[in-house]
Amino acid sequence: MLVQHIAERSVALDPHSFDPMARKWAKDAIADMIGCALLGARTATTDIALATSPNAGDCLVLGRKARIGRLEAAYVNATSGHALDYDDTSKSLSGHPTVIIIPALLALAEQRDATGAELLDAYIVGVETATRIARGVNFHHYEKGWHPTATLGIFGAAAACGRLLALPADRLAHALATAASFASGVKANFGTQTKPLHAGFAARNGLFAALLAAGGVPASPEAFEHPQGFLEVFNGTGHFNADRMLEAWGQPLDLLAPGISIKKYPCVYSVHGAIDAAIELRRRESLTADSIAAVTVRMHRRRLLPHVRNPATSALNAKFSMPYAVARGLVNGAVTLSHFEDDALYDPQVTRVMELIGVDEHSDDANDYGAEIVVVLSDGTRLAASVSSPLGRGPEAPLPDGMLRAKYTDCAGRALTAAGIEASFDMLMRLEDLDSVRELTALIQESSCV
Amino acid sequence: MLVQHIAERSVALDPHSFDPMARKWAKDAIADMIGCALLGARTATTDIALATSPNAGDCLVLGRKARIGRLEAAYVNATSGHALDYDDTSKSLSGHPTVIIIPALLALAEQRDATGAELLDAYIVGVETATRIARGVNFHHYEKGWHPTATLGIFGAAAACGRLLALPADRLAHALATAASFASGVKANFGTQTKPLHAGFAARNGLFAALLAAGGVPASPEAFEHPQGFLEVFNGTGHFNADRMLEAWGQPLDLLAPGISIKKYPCVYSVHGAIDAAIELRRRESLTADSIAAVTVRMHRRRLLPHVRNPATSALNAKFSMPYAVARGLVNGAVTLSHFEDDALYDPQVTRVMELIGVDEHSDDANDYGAEIVVVLSDGTRLAASVSSPLGRGPEAPLPDGMLRAKYTDCAGRALTAAGIEASFDMLMRLEDLDSVRELTALIQESSCV
Repeated sequence: MLVQHIAERSVALDPHSFDPMARKWAKDAIADMIGCALLGARTATTDIALATSPNAGDCLVLGRKARIGRLEAAYVNATSGHALDYDDTSKSLSGHPTVIIIPALLALAEQRDATGAELLDAYIVGVETATRIARGVNFHHYEKGWHPTATLGIFGAAAACGRLLALPADRLAHALATAASFASGVKANFGTQTKPLHAGFAARNGLFAALLAAGGVPASPEAFEHPQGFLEVFNGTGHFNADRMLEAWGQPLDLLAPGISIKKYPCVYSVHGAIDAAIELRRRESLTADSIAAVTVRMHRRRLLPHVRNPATSALNAKFSMPYAVARGLVNGAVTLSHFEDDALYDPQVTRVMELIGVDEHSDDANDYGAEIVVVLSDGTRLAASVSSPLGRGPEAPLPDGMLRAKYTDCAGRALTAAGIEASFDMLMRLEDLDSVRELTALIQESSCV
Repeated sequence: MLVQHIAERSVALDPHSFDPMARKWAKDAIADMIGCALLGARTATTDIALATSPNAGDCLVLGRKARIGRLEAAYVNATSGHALDYDDTSKSLSGHPTVIIIPALLALAEQRDATGAELLDAYIVGVETATRIARGVNFHHYEKGWHPTATLGIFGAAAACGRLLALPADRLAHALATAASFASGVKANFGTQTKPLHAGFAARNGLFAALLAAGGVPASPEAFEHPQGFLEVFNGTGHFNADRMLEAWGQPLDLLAPGISIKKYPCVYSVHGAIDAAIELRRRESLTADSIAAVTVRMHRRRLLPHVRNPATSALNAKFSMPYAVARGLVNGAVTLSHFEDDALYDPQVTRVMELIGVDEHSDDANDYGAEIVVVLSDGTRLAASVSSPLGRGPEAPLPDGMLRAKYTDCAGRALTAAGIEASFDMLMRLEDLDSVRELTALIQESSCV
């Protein structure tokens, strides 16, 4: 009856008890995700996601003037949101929570004409549910090869949509049990267009599971703990802890501890600490690329999956390449959208530095998102910089004021008019006051350039 | 590059080389599946599947006058086809191949105005591809808790649709790699409405994977053999044999050896042998239910999963209950649709016999679908009957002439006019002569009662 116990805790989450800081983080995360989707809406991945979906309905395709059905909008907007891998991440989830939850919720909220406050509170419930479930299966779930953004994020979308649909606990339990049968996505497909499609798929299917449960479809109350259920089949004996899924909900909310991380660089979050250290080293030491003879990057082994260790060979896998990201940080003192476009990765200076980078992995879980960089210059000088936590990572290291608006402006600049960018960001920052989410989507639609 | 090797073999399958018997089995399987969908179209499961899908498009909802989009039609028709668990099964797949492949293909064939012969040949390609992949991961895949109808059937739908779309091998490889990220479904949800939804989901997503590949979406060429790919993540080290996936395609076609099995009873295929034996025993010994004191059913352990051992407690789980099925066979000498409807399972005579049934499992793989029943009468007499293979199981035990038409008539009787039943069955029996699959769907639509 694990899904029932989880559902009861999810339903019991009371918005009146939510810390105002949780709402602040929720608004930032939602604005950031929508910015990422506006950016990603112009990619070939989104073109094909749209082309394979029926093209009529009530729900906005972010960054386009088109409207499609709720399931399809969840799918397309989540695909856009993850297309550039620039959206937020959660340590508990080992993945990207908002890009699954918000596209599902936004489509449903539009259709049901929900208020901004309802959207915000349902989002917080979705994050809490997904991350509590995640605590019971991670990090084995991630390390084994599942893509938790999809395979765990789906529960967040189901729970968030369940909240908006006011599902009672027994119905929400069925939604979570159904979601266990819809959860999918293997990490082997990282570094291809299929990765953002995982996000689209999970957002759609989380909403779908909630709609099926609302329609009365039952699934097994034992879908998690059954010998052929989610825990045994996805993780396997000895590799999960169901009790952890039930502990201390909302005390504090996972959104506040450990919190979520908003990305500053348009590449995989694993390497953000290393980029921060590289930029810091370059700035502090007035480093020039030509003087670099060798580089060693020390990071936690979980951040250094094979595809992260690899040098960049395509615009898409560049987004996962630690050597590329660190080389950009050392050469340019910045890592920007344009570094992942067109032929940027063939920059000869960057290629030279990329080839000098070696790896030193550790397993210290107390330092799992930090990074240390040691550069040896051609004259033998040894320089080092380290960060304990990348900027933007949870309440302990929030993004400085103005940085989120700047990122949103940069991202949305590809899709919206200048006035639309400003007005929509302002509206997102007062989401709790919106009488209808439709005001937000109407504004984004009107401001869309295509 | 396993998906590439598989795709090359799939693309190389040449319809000119197909044994005419394979086409005969294909036609029977397609007719049988469509009959099952016409039956299942009147269930609450199909109602909710339809209610959660957008309601406009070109593709027929079997058993209704409605037309919806291709992905949605694949979803709804496969859900209907599996709603009563009366559709065909494959030993290689350890699941139901046709209910995944045909709904996906039928929707695509309608949309593209394919011929009957194209549908037939694409179906054969789909079965061959799914079952060859299955040979590399079964039976561990099944025993671990995956629902192979969904998790392996999806590759059959992708390959069949890929054939109809004339995808070259490199594109089909991407479709199979994407399908590895869409594959889902755990057996914990057996015995609930979520099980037929697994079928709907897999049919939709197999078609979807093919459409994405046709649209140019790449996935990883290593999606199967990658350390975080399909083989390792779904089955795990030591529990698969990739070489078996590549052996002896079409020599002979899996559709001919071991072949597929067409169900005679509207319940889980595992118990068909036991029902045959029970009916045989009752007929031969003129058994009356009152005289039975004890029953022992000897079957292969793979046929006796926990939910199969359980006595029936609901109309839905009755379809998986060996004790219920055998009791019906012994009491009624038949197992019919009406035995799984309304309050049939509370029949006191059946309940009494159900409680007398014990199990004797074995692991003899040479006798994995056979069954032996021993009945002890109240006067101590011991009676026994055994079957080595249930009737309807592959080319070695085909259904007797007329039995398929009778089953189709029984199933379609709930959805079509009498004239429509006859005309559509006749058309299905000459599928290879149809200039357009739309003739078939138009006839079914016209004959639909709602």
